[in-house]
Amino acid sequence: MLIVKKFGGSSVADKERIFNVATRCIEDYNKGHQVVVVLSAMGKTTDGLLEKARQINPNASKREMDMLLSTGEQVSVALMAMAIQALGVPVVSLNAWQVAMHTTSRYTHAKLKRIDTERIYNELEMRKIVVITGFQGINKYDDLTTLGRGGSDTTAVAIAAALHADSCEIYTDVEGVYTADPRVVPNARKMKEVTYDEMLDFASLGAKVLHNRSVEMAKKYGVQLVVRSSLNRSEGTIVKEEVRTMEKMLISGVAADKNTARLSVMGVKDEPGIAFRVFNYLSRKGINVDIILQSVGREGTKDISFTVAKTDLKDALDIIHENMDAITAKKVEYEEHVAKVSIIGAGMTSNPGVAAKMFEALFGVGVNIKMISTSEIRITVLIDEADTERAMRAVHDAFALGD
Amino acid sequence: MLIVKKFGGSSVADKERIFNVATRCIEDYNKGHQVVVVLSAMGKTTDGLLEKARQINPNASKREMDMLLSTGEQVSVALMAMAIQALGVPVVSLNAWQVAMHTTSRYTHAKLKRIDTERIYNELEMRKIVVITGFQGINKYDDLTTLGRGGSDTTAVAIAAALHADSCEIYTDVEGVYTADPRVVPNARKMKEVTYDEMLDFASLGAKVLHNRSVEMAKKYGVQLVVRSSLNRSEGTIVKEEVRTMEKMLISGVAADKNTARLSVMGVKDEPGIAFRVFNYLSRKGINVDIILQSVGREGTKDISFTVAKTDLKDALDIIHENMDAITAKKVEYEEHVAKVSIIGAGMTSNPGVAAKMFEALFGVGVNIKMISTSEIRITVLIDEADTERAMRAVHDAFALGD
Repeated sequence: MLIVKKFGGSSVADKERIFNVATRCIEDYNKGHQVVVVLSAMGKTTDGLLEKARQINPNASKREMDMLLSTGEQVSVALMAMAIQALGVPVVSLNAWQVAMHTTSRYTHAKLKRIDTERIYNELEMRKIVVITGFQGINKYDDLTTLGRGGSDTTAVAIAAALHADSCEIYTDVEGVYTADPRVVPNARKMKEVTYDEMLDFASLGAKVLHNRSVEMAKKYGVQLVVRSSLNRSEGTIVKEEVRTMEKMLISGVAADKNTARLSVMGVKDEPGIAFRVFNYLSRKGINVDIILQSVGREGTKDISFTVAKTDLKDALDIIHENMDAITAKKVEYEEHVAKVSIIGAGMTSNPGVAAKMFEALFGVGVNIKMISTSEIRITVLIDEADTERAMRAVHDAFALGD
Repeated sequence: MLIVKKFGGSSVADKERIFNVATRCIEDYNKGHQVVVVLSAMGKTTDGLLEKARQINPNASKREMDMLLSTGEQVSVALMAMAIQALGVPVVSLNAWQVAMHTTSRYTHAKLKRIDTERIYNELEMRKIVVITGFQGINKYDDLTTLGRGGSDTTAVAIAAALHADSCEIYTDVEGVYTADPRVVPNARKMKEVTYDEMLDFASLGAKVLHNRSVEMAKKYGVQLVVRSSLNRSEGTIVKEEVRTMEKMLISGVAADKNTARLSVMGVKDEPGIAFRVFNYLSRKGINVDIILQSVGREGTKDISFTVAKTDLKDALDIIHENMDAITAKKVEYEEHVAKVSIIGAGMTSNPGVAAKMFEALFGVGVNIKMISTSEIRITVLIDEADTERAMRAVHDAFALGD
């Protein structure tokens, strides 16, 4: 088997953890597998480099930021290779241009375009463990780029796709994907398997196990992912196209996201193009809008409500206030202390009773629903932030997701 | 003019010094010059990386050491580029493979083979300051290499040669090359110009301003060097082929080297090949022998005396003791507390009185000469280490080298 294993920054933060990772890679190697390891920068390395850059030039070009930051993963892979050598196994570390990993030109937010496989295959054929820098690439100018958030996961998936790997293991500090956050819902159950689409919803709805970008790429190229713990041998959760397990649940799990705020633009003229204008102003500033609800207001006007990330609230308010005339708005209201709670499951499409069951569970514990949004495999409600945990437990119980 | 400027690790150790270097580069840029900057890793960065590696694997492969260490200069050049950007001047940082700087395959001690100039010229034509990583290269396997001691100076000279630069300025913490160490000889004079050959002797005889490797390369490719201070605007010393100044001195300066020890192998059979054997054993272990003196011993034997670096003394003694029979030696003696004092000057060849004048000066202050070695542009004497400073001052005065 050819196995790609990805470890994050905290998994290589010190000597002990580096040797822990090295040992796990060697276990697979000694079973006869070909092993490719993708690493992030060690612990707080990236933060340290960012701070140095900030002191010298808070407006440094992104090209130079990437030149600086890409050293972090190179330190990780070199030290990991040294640890594997210390344990007596042949190994080689490779950075973005040695592989080479070609990306788009956009610095700090580059996208992987193509990964050369020749050098990796050559090293694997010499029976070496191959340790590769995550998060980085090179663009058409031969400049270093970084991939932005979730970059190292994406590197691992892309390498697994390029090598036609049998498995791509993403190591985290949790044991897998749960039916709900175990810190909130004590009897939450670790799922054996989950589909790409469900995983995408889990990720975008607050479960911070995998970044959506990497799941999207895994889905596109059919790379089977395994989410598992770097701290123990627990089996983790498999993310793949179709879940075949007999015990397939209607609902896979419950997720919550507190990084959300509600905005309402009131008294907008009921004319075509107004709503478009609102969201166009926001998207031009890079603000994503989530749940949208439009209702009839007084005297031929309408009210448009939507959610944005809590961290974007201030910017969103500024933009709307600056454009009150253009969007014909009379008033803006907002609510900061709200949260999204969602249920996710490929099985819900054919079951019209699911939404009713969720709302009943929330009503049962006195949680008021402010907004509702649904997709084929997801139902999301906006509620008071203070109700989040209570809502999660109630919904989790209602669908009997626990152990 | 195209100017290559090289700054060492202490010149870029913190924010203030980075901006000091940036400012000096911009001064030349604003005069209309094309400016290429070569940098070492910041301050103690390399030591920090070495310590991390040592903790994980004291016997790590040199290939992985170079992968690790080469990140140091990359951090330097990215931060320098950010500083230059902050001062409003276009700039780009380049690492070894972006340039590209091709070296031999030998890790940690690679030699530069060829430097591509296309990218550097392109960036210069766009009126950018080009900041390049010193000390590193890439080999035929696309692996990173480092150049070993004096590496960044060598990078600067090689780039200056490849670009046919008008000047290669090596910035140090001293103001230039002096007639003697100013800490020892208070009236030592900074030289305006010195030849490559004199500089080579100064370097190998204890003046730690430039590494011989870079001077040899400068001589080979006719690159004019300027040694000057990164702390002030003093003019520094020019190192070039022929010194044309009217006031050319017979003797350029005095140098001392305390890292020396004397060994004597006594009672060796007076047969051909014995001396060869002694030095062959030593060179195979990488021990360089300096001054050699052979004298007639008793009963058809001879005594061979020579100097080695003080740091090699123990190894040299071990090697000779292990091979006493093979080299037919009866006894080994050694002296640890000795030093070499040398006078250097292209003018001395045609002046037979120079040696006599030096010996007279030493005799005048009661310094005993243990061994003597001469070359066309140098006379070296071995004396008691305790006499070093006194000897330097006496010789410096005798040749009226001071201000």
